[in-house]
Amino acid sequence: MDLYSSHINKLIEELSRLPGVGPKSAQRLAFHIINMPSEEVAQLSASIIEAKSNVRYCKICFTLTDDELCPICKNVKRDHKTIMVVESTRDLAAYEKIGRFEGVYHVLHGAISPMLGIGPNEIKLKELIQRLQEDVDEVIIATNSSLEGETTAMYISKLVKPTGIKVTRIASGVPVGGDLEYIDEVTLLRALDGRIEL
Amino acid sequence: MDLYSSHINKLIEELSRLPGVGPKSAQRLAFHIINMPSEEVAQLSASIIEAKSNVRYCKICFTLTDDELCPICKNVKRDHKTIMVVESTRDLAAYEKIGRFEGVYHVLHGAISPMLGIGPNEIKLKELIQRLQEDVDEVIIATNSSLEGETTAMYISKLVKPTGIKVTRIASGVPVGGDLEYIDEVTLLRALDGRIEL
Repeated sequence: MDLYSSHINKLIEELSRLPGVGPKSAQRLAFHIINMPSEEVAQLSASIIEAKSNVRYCKICFTLTDDELCPICKNVKRDHKTIMVVESTRDLAAYEKIGRFEGVYHVLHGAISPMLGIGPNEIKLKELIQRLQEDVDEVIIATNSSLEGETTAMYISKLVKPTGIKVTRIASGVPVGGDLEYIDEVTLLRALDGRIEL
Repeated sequence: MDLYSSHINKLIEELSRLPGVGPKSAQRLAFHIINMPSEEVAQLSASIIEAKSNVRYCKICFTLTDDELCPICKNVKRDHKTIMVVESTRDLAAYEKIGRFEGVYHVLHGAISPMLGIGPNEIKLKELIQRLQEDVDEVIIATNSSLEGETTAMYISKLVKPTGIKVTRIASGVPVGGDLEYIDEVTLLRALDGRIEL
């Protein structure tokens, strides 16, 4: 469509590449942006660049954070001997929101998927194993209950068991095929409480 | 939530201000952006700023465009004696997409709404009346069939009639309460073909 200005077309094109943004919503967003006050547009644009360039991985748990260490890893009140392994920072956020887990996390940034060619080396697994050389009581595997999540859980449990550290898996309260981040808090709690030793 | 980095939080906040973007989708978009290659992020950010700062109104029809005049107003093959009055550039785009209208447009950038305190002076109405001093055969009113759109249509027809120029309204093929931009092309065509003189 060269119905609009080339700048609008470019913006619509860029926006429609984002997940969940179809051509119609991209158009709607673009026109909204053009009608926003200039300062707000500048802020939006800057926050995109700043988030991209200033966010980094926590040196311990690999969640996304501003500093060397994330607020959870820095917090001495948390139980650093209990590590919950999650696939993504958003899954961490889902568990933090219910506020019942007192331990720390390990963010894998993915799950093992032979289909997609993602092996153990493509996710932060080595880094998890390294952490187990510290004083660790329990590893709670909270990967999604998808095929990839289950594969990853099995893989991790096989790696951790020889070390003598307790390995648990969150209970099957999480519906099969579901993404942790979209599950209600009660289900998340039940899954945590009902975790079983692997 | 200070679960994430302050930069991510800022980005999520900015994104969730956009229309149709709830907190969950803002979060999803923010993480997607952080995982995008840096060049793509720079492009997205720049296209926002560029669209905002380089887009202007066409001097004749007031659609959004890059130059003094939009491609439609510059096109000598179009029938400049037939002016279709629409509420927004997106409505113009909806009619351009079906490719059957050969005339030119006038974009009001809104509709008269006593409820919202939008009077005739808040939209590009004076500018339309000024255009009628040129050689014009017909004014087709294609405002939405909402209360505001109908009010605007009546208002315009009363202004134009004394000049002796033909005034028409697109037919009621457009469902009451519907927005032009979401209507299928067949309905849009029928509405154009069945237009009635006011």
